Amino acid sequence: MTSLKNDLFIRALLKQDVERTPVWMMRQAGRYLPEYRAVRSKAGSFMQLCTNPELACEVTLQPLERFAFDAAILFSDILTIPDAMGLGLSFAEGEGPQFAKPIRTAEDIKQLPIPDPESELRYVIDAVRLIKTNLQGRVPLIGFSGSPWTLATYMVEGKSSKSFQKVKSLMFEQPQLMHQMLDKLAQSVAAYLNAQIAAGADAVMVFDTWGGMLSHDDYLEFSLRYAKQVKDLLKLERDGQKIPAILFTKGGGLWLESMANIGYDGLGLDWQTDIAQARSRVGNQVALQGNMDPITLYAKPEVIREKVGKILHSYGQGSGHVFNLGHGILPDINPEHVKAMVDAVHELSPQYHTAG
Amino acid sequence: MTSLKNDLFIRALLKQDVERTPVWMMRQAGRYLPEYRAVRSKAGSFMQLCTNPELACEVTLQPLERFAFDAAILFSDILTIPDAMGLGLSFAEGEGPQFAKPIRTAEDIKQLPIPDPESELRYVIDAVRLIKTNLQGRVPLIGFSGSPWTLATYMVEGKSSKSFQKVKSLMFEQPQLMHQMLDKLAQSVAAYLNAQIAAGADAVMVFDTWGGMLSHDDYLEFSLRYAKQVKDLLKLERDGQKIPAILFTKGGGLWLESMANIGYDGLGLDWQTDIAQARSRVGNQVALQGNMDPITLYAKPEVIREKVGKILHSYGQGSGHVFNLGHGILPDINPEHVKAMVDAVHELSPQYHTAG
Repeated sequence: MTSLKNDLFIRALLKQDVERTPVWMMRQAGRYLPEYRAVRSKAGSFMQLCTNPELACEVTLQPLERFAFDAAILFSDILTIPDAMGLGLSFAEGEGPQFAKPIRTAEDIKQLPIPDPESELRYVIDAVRLIKTNLQGRVPLIGFSGSPWTLATYMVEGKSSKSFQKVKSLMFEQPQLMHQMLDKLAQSVAAYLNAQIAAGADAVMVFDTWGGMLSHDDYLEFSLRYAKQVKDLLKLERDGQKIPAILFTKGGGLWLESMANIGYDGLGLDWQTDIAQARSRVGNQVALQGNMDPITLYAKPEVIREKVGKILHSYGQGSGHVFNLGHGILPDINPEHVKAMVDAVHELSPQYHTAG
Repeated sequence: MTSLKNDLFIRALLKQDVERTPVWMMRQAGRYLPEYRAVRSKAGSFMQLCTNPELACEVTLQPLERFAFDAAILFSDILTIPDAMGLGLSFAEGEGPQFAKPIRTAEDIKQLPIPDPESELRYVIDAVRLIKTNLQGRVPLIGFSGSPWTLATYMVEGKSSKSFQKVKSLMFEQPQLMHQMLDKLAQSVAAYLNAQIAAGADAVMVFDTWGGMLSHDDYLEFSLRYAKQVKDLLKLERDGQKIPAILFTKGGGLWLESMANIGYDGLGLDWQTDIAQARSRVGNQVALQGNMDPITLYAKPEVIREKVGKILHSYGQGSGHVFNLGHGILPDINPEHVKAMVDAVHELSPQYHTAG
């Protein structure tokens, strides 16, 4: 393994001293970049881009050419696992993900396989290997997956949902079936992330995009419990190097204390959560990643710089903060505004680190 | 004024002793009821129903014929104020609200009038009077409005939004303009609610549907500040009777302590917020209203009863709880399931009240 030339991101997650706050951005390889749109249109469909390791590698590296990000994140989709389980993932233009064979019966759940990442998700693992080679240790590579609960929502609803009626009805009326499904998903997610780690990922992140749609009790029982099962099955070390794991529940600000207790190194914060309060609530248990409102990037560079400064100040002195947005960047943001954000983190954060 | 035959709802909000926990339901007069759909189709458009006091009265009273609710809520829309300001509200079938003349310039904001409720919103105030007469003191009548921030989001976006890009960009780049607009809205909302109180409303509720899309600091500056201005301008007494006021910020569970500090009698809780934790956080400052996940009503009656029991138990002993959903009822719920919820509150709640 190449050792990392820039390991700020890893050190911040492990709460080791850093000279400045590391920064990356959810969906940093994406539609706001013209060079991404060029590759995307060359690839054909979104899934054709995801399943082509060379192209996935190319778009993963693109944002690093423009911006001084401290991490790369694998270009992929959160729904690769249910696709590998045989549900038939596609993306209708402008409509989001769809499954040809959503989960409808107890038998569907019983039949769900646990995919072998090195065969059924080979295209992802190959992409990780290729990106890792091409990165040459420049920055860490983040692998990721959807959380068991979030995968289950799409698998039962068949597509994006506003009310989550189908999946919640299953949860309320047949909780045992739901638990069966989530257990299989947790095993699948762990195997998938372990394969990404073995292939070179330097950190992993679990995206619980829809955990925040649950009540407190249901979150603990149907989302967090399986995020913990994933964590407990992860092999978070490679060649003596610690691999940090991050859990991000969008809309989960109320539950940070519970999230901090299940062994992840870092928690992602959405922009609604005050990062100073979050830090005082979780204490030294975990690092925090976030959390600028993504809409801030529409504003002029001076405003962006001011908001970056506020978040850095709000987190305060010391390590344990990875700067990011509170959710993914939107497709029509001006890349110059991203530069303003990254530059602001580079310039304004050293004062919060004694090593800086 | 007729005195109330059932004032459980008022007493619970004022934290006076009650024999059992009162219950009503957001959007209780609505599409899940076949008798509502009949009136709605007779009226023509949704706005024609809202602006016809006789029909608005009829649908307001409908749910009380079926269910033992402890309050009626005025049938209206949260966006009547911007419509009265001249923005031209309409509802495209299945598409939600739209404004013909959204706010685009500083001049648009400068020109915004503060509507006189007794003339420009006469149809609402007439509906309140008519409902009040027809209720004959059976249960209290709740008046309501959208919060200044929530009204502003629709006025600037022109319709429902997912990202709130336009209104947040105005907020980030020209905060002074945003404050001008919110100040006018707060004055308008207060005048509107005061007119509803004068016309007979026994309680008022401010719906901050989109406050939860803001960061913590922005929530305090652009949403809560104006909810407080509204509160400070309300005349919450009529003929020696105290008129309780409720504030509901959907997605506001992180900010309950701040919300509890601005003088409202009760806070609405969405279903994500654990009601036991909420109670311990706000102490005796406010009553709490909520908070069953609306999707629970798709489940079979035994499940509904069990979930009602959990919420009552979670709130625990004593007054200060109004049972409700954590958001509005969905249009395709079976009315029998609503009955299961209401019956469960009636049967399971007396044990939590020493007077019961």
